[in-house]
Amino acid sequence: METHVVNWEALRSFCQELMMKENMSAGDAFVCADNLVDADLAGVESHGVSRMTNYMKRLRTRVVDPQAVPEAVQELPASLYVDGKNAMGMVVGEYAMRRCIEKARETGCCFAAAHHSNHFGMAAYYSMMAAREGLIGFCATNAPPNLAPWGSSQKYMGTNPFCISAPTKGEPITLDMAPSVVAMGKIILAAKLGQKIPEGWVVDKDGNPCTDPVVGQYGTLLPIGGPKGSGIAIFVEILCGILAGAVCGPHINHFWNDFENPQNVGHVFCAIDPEKFCGKEAFIEGVDQLIGELKSLPKTPGTTEIYMPGEIENTRRATRKAQGIQMSDSVYKELAALAEQYQIEFTI
Amino acid sequence: METHVVNWEALRSFCQELMMKENMSAGDAFVCADNLVDADLAGVESHGVSRMTNYMKRLRTRVVDPQAVPEAVQELPASLYVDGKNAMGMVVGEYAMRRCIEKARETGCCFAAAHHSNHFGMAAYYSMMAAREGLIGFCATNAPPNLAPWGSSQKYMGTNPFCISAPTKGEPITLDMAPSVVAMGKIILAAKLGQKIPEGWVVDKDGNPCTDPVVGQYGTLLPIGGPKGSGIAIFVEILCGILAGAVCGPHINHFWNDFENPQNVGHVFCAIDPEKFCGKEAFIEGVDQLIGELKSLPKTPGTTEIYMPGEIENTRRATRKAQGIQMSDSVYKELAALAEQYQIEFTI
Repeated sequence: METHVVNWEALRSFCQELMMKENMSAGDAFVCADNLVDADLAGVESHGVSRMTNYMKRLRTRVVDPQAVPEAVQELPASLYVDGKNAMGMVVGEYAMRRCIEKARETGCCFAAAHHSNHFGMAAYYSMMAAREGLIGFCATNAPPNLAPWGSSQKYMGTNPFCISAPTKGEPITLDMAPSVVAMGKIILAAKLGQKIPEGWVVDKDGNPCTDPVVGQYGTLLPIGGPKGSGIAIFVEILCGILAGAVCGPHINHFWNDFENPQNVGHVFCAIDPEKFCGKEAFIEGVDQLIGELKSLPKTPGTTEIYMPGEIENTRRATRKAQGIQMSDSVYKELAALAEQYQIEFTI
Repeated sequence: METHVVNWEALRSFCQELMMKENMSAGDAFVCADNLVDADLAGVESHGVSRMTNYMKRLRTRVVDPQAVPEAVQELPASLYVDGKNAMGMVVGEYAMRRCIEKARETGCCFAAAHHSNHFGMAAYYSMMAAREGLIGFCATNAPPNLAPWGSSQKYMGTNPFCISAPTKGEPITLDMAPSVVAMGKIILAAKLGQKIPEGWVVDKDGNPCTDPVVGQYGTLLPIGGPKGSGIAIFVEILCGILAGAVCGPHINHFWNDFENPQNVGHVFCAIDPEKFCGKEAFIEGVDQLIGELKSLPKTPGTTEIYMPGEIENTRRATRKAQGIQMSDSVYKELAALAEQYQIEFTI
């Protein structure tokens, strides 16, 4: 399979320029591009620039408003009720988390909930914003349906991720997780490759156990820990679909094939300032000590290293910033086609 | 097996009276007794009055301070840094959540972190306090080690539960979950009964898969979703062990067999006021609608009802309040022995 090696900053500038061609401001386009390229740096390619063709179509059709400015329609010392105004989800997310950070520095903690938003890319981007400023960051989002509540065979909740980051002396420690055992992408890939899948990943459309990914891709994903993962997904709907004033799973319009109706996705964000608890220095010291203790524990047979949440992604970021991002030929060609369509130079 | 049927209010009064005999105030003793009896009402007997003998010994030896008054040593509009002063964990938890609720009503959200605390009973008690007042409640606690980080064979984190509740028109919806697949109690029970356990519950002390509970009880519990559940447990340590200024898993002194050294458990609490987001009425309306939609989805083969998080516990509470709590003869006799020891009337 042919691949290309691209420079992350050139890729980010290119994506920014593309979005500016659809009337986004330079700042907003930068935020979106930075989120997408950060996903590629972290190895979360599913949330990276491979989505640019779709994002550009969403902007071009104006199903997403490129010029919308998110606004806090109700604000208290520790809360922000945000109307995303149908802006790109990244623009809504960056605004909400930035304001949470500012306010948490004053009040100790701030919680934001946003409606009228769209797919916001990689969740870790927002929680890491807080952690890079020395705060604990949390965020979650709902999404179109892919997961049934425990006991049902019909998908309702999204693979609703939540994410939490904390600062360390180095890069933040970050848990970015969906409450499903695997992503639907894994089922679809196994179907393409003609592979079986293990029981416990998915059930068929009638709720029966399923190891055939061709059947499973029309079924529903299984949650981690049965009712536990299901419960997490339900509470993400309660926070992001209801508290935020957006809509829940099946009422979200589709990202990939609906270019007429805004998604109305909801997100929540929270920042907590350690300085107002154990103290910032003691906190970072403590997190580093915890990580040191965890990583030096005895390993299970076959394990070469005990990885912390987000550690592999942090290592990839550093490597790919230094050595470039490997990009598949198909994504490369999609970007080249966008360059031609928008008449901009293809220099990544 | 002989059982007794006891009245929940009589049981609560009895436990309260016992703790007052160790110099707890009537109010603090009520909070502790109410938490324990609520666990028995909910069917979480592991966290109920079966622990009274141990709690009384902890109070008698003064490894827990019966007269301590928790204090917010640093307070901002949306944060409380609480010194539990080595009070009973329930006293610390009730104080912290009560203050979070008060403050969140003013500011939208409040986050509390408490150190110098002890085992705080059933987590759902605190998140439900908030939900019963129309707010979203969240809490988490760390605990003595029972869970290894993913890739290690050595237990480090507790079965660190987190809990979230939201108000409905009826009883709150509540997710109270540990990030382990099962509780260690299930392994110990299987060992007692001479049963095998499924692979995936526990690994032996060297980290090998294990289906023999006799071996498994000396091993370590497995997290839900592998690195996902492990990551949740690590972040509960970061919040409760570090941010709260307490200590992490292996540094917590044991509840069952250490009567000399205070535990120094940490907890976090958060309350969020829906009135400052989508509005209280719209929120409750929305949660009820979500629950209705989820419960009416098609069921998997063999499922008779789709239960919401905490629904089974809510139903049990109502039944047991009306019909009494079934109590095993061994717990009944333990309580009778305490009545004799403290010279109080045994009227449950």
